[in-house]
Amino acid sequence: MAMKVHGHVLSAATQRVTLTLYEKELDFEFIAVDMKSGDHKNEPFISLNPFGQVPAFEHGDLKLCESRAITQYIVHEHPNKGTQLIFRDGKKMAIMLMWMQIEANQLDPVATKLAWEFIFKKMFGLETDLVAVEEHEAKLSKVLDVYEARLTNSKYIAGDAFSLADLHHLPIIQCLMGTPSKKLFDERPHVSAWCADMLARPAWAKVIAMQEQNKDL
Amino acid sequence: MAMKVHGHVLSAATQRVTLTLYEKELDFEFIAVDMKSGDHKNEPFISLNPFGQVPAFEHGDLKLCESRAITQYIVHEHPNKGTQLIFRDGKKMAIMLMWMQIEANQLDPVATKLAWEFIFKKMFGLETDLVAVEEHEAKLSKVLDVYEARLTNSKYIAGDAFSLADLHHLPIIQCLMGTPSKKLFDERPHVSAWCADMLARPAWAKVIAMQEQNKDL
Repeated sequence: MAMKVHGHVLSAATQRVTLTLYEKELDFEFIAVDMKSGDHKNEPFISLNPFGQVPAFEHGDLKLCESRAITQYIVHEHPNKGTQLIFRDGKKMAIMLMWMQIEANQLDPVATKLAWEFIFKKMFGLETDLVAVEEHEAKLSKVLDVYEARLTNSKYIAGDAFSLADLHHLPIIQCLMGTPSKKLFDERPHVSAWCADMLARPAWAKVIAMQEQNKDL
Repeated sequence: MAMKVHGHVLSAATQRVTLTLYEKELDFEFIAVDMKSGDHKNEPFISLNPFGQVPAFEHGDLKLCESRAITQYIVHEHPNKGTQLIFRDGKKMAIMLMWMQIEANQLDPVATKLAWEFIFKKMFGLETDLVAVEEHEAKLSKVLDVYEARLTNSKYIAGDAFSLADLHHLPIIQCLMGTPSKKLFDERPHVSAWCADMLARPAWAKVIAMQEQNKDL
């Protein structure tokens, strides 16, 4: 019973899921959703995710949306395959759950706004709003100050091993590495080393290879 | 070793945590944070949560922020106390994790904007922006359509029992019940019945009682 990922290779949320599958060394079927044609807003996709957002995930009769829930399902179902990706000790798990929330609630919203300004606006022929960029970069700086303090005392964000709390960050960090906002990461030595370590993971190279092979989708 | 919650009785995020503690029938110490004086943005609070947001949580040497991580820690640490609040079966847990993400990513952002327009703006002597309200209500309606479809086939949002996926919604739903946006819930019979069921829970009455006792904070 193959796991199926319906998504787009350029979507950060899709990449969170495919990266988890590569880290866990699991086979899966990838079904490219033609977002240019609006297929994510129509049937059959909206029966998988009524909110019309990629990715959607199928495993037998289980249908899931929301990338950060899908990654947790994959990891809990396959505890003995590939990279561990979670902590089982109660307090360590709590710290991991907290950093998963921090990624989603503190870092991702502002990082996504910067990606919109520098990358996606260009795709739509719109101009980058430099006043908005300044405001978003000031917010991201404050968030990254907290990360720098944390990473001074911890190799990975949730503890001594790479976990879902780190993994969830990778797609948006890769995105910002190709923009002027890269400087905010470079200025912070522990954040910078953490990013370099994660971006060098073999599983991430597989996500990038998949992107290269499908970039015309 | 008492669990300590540093928070504010009017904060939805604080209420998520105290509600979980009441559902699990656990003792805890509540430390009111004087937000009017900005205590959440200064030491000693920011050593508990460097993002300067309530609540923060302490259990011995474990310090946590992010309400949705704190609730999960409490539930995992006390599996045999009070209401169960989670599903242990892999697929049921996946569905619960998905609805926890949907609450946080789809419902809460727009519901919080409506609470800001109708409730918090008044506290600050600002006027409700009716154009913004119309836009937010249109978005919330679409989200609640998905909830109505789900609740037609499921007593609770993640399955046949009340879980954290339901619980996380309660504070913001209670908030909107006192605003004109209540109509969006009333118009949908299954959503409306779900809200009434949750708002009648004894543990929720305890959160409200705590609010009444501390409303001058």
